[in-house]
Amino acid sequence: MPIADHDEFTGEEVRLALRNPGMPLEALRRPVTPIGMHYVLVHFDVPVIDEAGHDLVIDGRVERPLTLGMDDLRARPAVSMPVVMECAGSGRAHLAPRPVSAPWHEEAVGCAEWTGTPLRPLLEEAGLLDDAVEVLFTGCDRGLDQGVEQDYQRSLPVAEALRDNVLLAYAMNGQPLPPPHGFPLRLIVPEWYGMASVKWLRSITAIPEPFDGVQQTVLYCYRRSEDDPGTPVTRKRPRALMAPPGIPEFLSRIRHVPAGPCVVVGRAWSGGTAIRRVELSADGGRTWAAARLDDPAGPHGWTGWSCAWNATEPGDHELWVCATDADGDTQPLAAADVWNQGGYGVNAVQRVRVRVD
Amino acid sequence: MPIADHDEFTGEEVRLALRNPGMPLEALRRPVTPIGMHYVLVHFDVPVIDEAGHDLVIDGRVERPLTLGMDDLRARPAVSMPVVMECAGSGRAHLAPRPVSAPWHEEAVGCAEWTGTPLRPLLEEAGLLDDAVEVLFTGCDRGLDQGVEQDYQRSLPVAEALRDNVLLAYAMNGQPLPPPHGFPLRLIVPEWYGMASVKWLRSITAIPEPFDGVQQTVLYCYRRSEDDPGTPVTRKRPRALMAPPGIPEFLSRIRHVPAGPCVVVGRAWSGGTAIRRVELSADGGRTWAAARLDDPAGPHGWTGWSCAWNATEPGDHELWVCATDADGDTQPLAAADVWNQGGYGVNAVQRVRVRVD
Repeated sequence: MPIADHDEFTGEEVRLALRNPGMPLEALRRPVTPIGMHYVLVHFDVPVIDEAGHDLVIDGRVERPLTLGMDDLRARPAVSMPVVMECAGSGRAHLAPRPVSAPWHEEAVGCAEWTGTPLRPLLEEAGLLDDAVEVLFTGCDRGLDQGVEQDYQRSLPVAEALRDNVLLAYAMNGQPLPPPHGFPLRLIVPEWYGMASVKWLRSITAIPEPFDGVQQTVLYCYRRSEDDPGTPVTRKRPRALMAPPGIPEFLSRIRHVPAGPCVVVGRAWSGGTAIRRVELSADGGRTWAAARLDDPAGPHGWTGWSCAWNATEPGDHELWVCATDADGDTQPLAAADVWNQGGYGVNAVQRVRVRVD
Repeated sequence: MPIADHDEFTGEEVRLALRNPGMPLEALRRPVTPIGMHYVLVHFDVPVIDEAGHDLVIDGRVERPLTLGMDDLRARPAVSMPVVMECAGSGRAHLAPRPVSAPWHEEAVGCAEWTGTPLRPLLEEAGLLDDAVEVLFTGCDRGLDQGVEQDYQRSLPVAEALRDNVLLAYAMNGQPLPPPHGFPLRLIVPEWYGMASVKWLRSITAIPEPFDGVQQTVLYCYRRSEDDPGTPVTRKRPRALMAPPGIPEFLSRIRHVPAGPCVVVGRAWSGGTAIRRVELSADGGRTWAAARLDDPAGPHGWTGWSCAWNATEPGDHELWVCATDADGDTQPLAAADVWNQGGYGVNAVQRVRVRVD
């Protein structure tokens, strides 16, 4: 990935931003992210797919290859659950120098209710052979990246693919999947960053050695330098975000808040574990106030939080918010603390500029 | 609006792009733009509105002020129609120097099917008084722009507000309006650029003098220089767009097409008139091939087109497409030909980079 050493953004970054929307942060006031407010990342083009002709093939190192149509999948047991979907690149734009890719600040997230059928029973029906080590998921989207022409593909280790919470989803918020979210079928891997939840899913292949495609071994790895072999990006790191209080200025997005007591609200999450603590600072991290936590929206949804802030002093302020998860992992204060070549997992505390009038 | 004199983009522009998605241009392959692929421009924040408590007030210079709930509006005669919605700022990013605002290239467009009740009979029931010269529409979104705190407001001259095609819309593609598109109610002014189609509509006020709010008199005016009083932005200028052929490279978005015959497809539109001609050039405008036109999708929808291109020569090409409407208006070849301070109506021909492999 090219690296930019300046504050301004390239035309490529702007074009990626225009076709890959973030979630407007005021959507954090809503427990479920509506279709049209949820972030989207599409590597290549959104394919046009006729549902009637769309089959899912399960093959490779299995005893009984399967081919299922959409009606077959919908006839199977269905599960619905809220899942926080987040792009691994969320936070990338705060890095300096900055990897040139989708220039997410912290808005590459959403929490929708996904409906589908669990993957595990299907893999059990197909019968994974003993030499299967990974399960490879292939989408219908095709293009070039890192110089390689490819269908979008990602794998999971067998143990991860067999987790009970992995779904083959055909509905989002009770509607058929919108095209940018994978119509008619996508994988949902609730604990991982979004790159694992392959969209426009057409095949599931049990493979006898680890997948080495570019989306797995070149991209989506934490690397401190170009010759660092790196470690794979997997589960979401903890993050809290606030719905920016008050009202915005159009261009700067600076928030204007009347002087007086104010309640700041938001949501927090972490991949595969609960949120233990959310804290708010209005003095650059010198002091932190503990937020009140709501009950989480299921094991893979987000946790609402609220925190009083007494906006007594007119002038410019910056609000910071920081989450700690049940494993004790806390967000770093600065993006530089988690700098890496691809700009993944940059979960530094959110900072929102507020002007008290 | 500040002006940028360089190719790179500011942080403000990128943040606006991330929260205001364009339509991914592959959506031009679809006759109706799905929710989640249609462009969105939100000046302030998307408000959270409880439909049960949302009233529309019709007041000002009328004989009988009216207050209508959403059920009242849905009980009235309903009309559904495809409408091309386009931001007046689409094309702005091609200008040099460039007004700093939403950095649209040409993707700020979509064609959905909107359902609602015509405005005219409601204005007739309220009874416009003789001194009413404009009708002012107020949304629920509030913020600051050009130094002024405001609700988003735009007006129409009475004669424009009384046109039969102006709707109060409560559904998009057969669904309740998604929040970024104005839930629960928005105006649809089919011939004009999108700024006229006020979202989250809460009041309609007949006024005895022209509205002079910043969204009407400071923004959305064609001005050649800062001291030019300017002329108002109204109807959409003609534009054709192609669905980029072949497959994309992730970062550059350069298209890769196999050598051989290729059919390029797209859509074209113009505000208030039909499309007469669409032409494609593969040699920088020296020669143009006439595209075949489909029947238009109603008077306010777009017109599909297709044009053969024989991609015989391997290497880099640029495809240009140009529309001419029934009034004889043709797209300019260069954005500079329609430069203006706000970057509005920049309908220069689309240029798509294609690599023949």
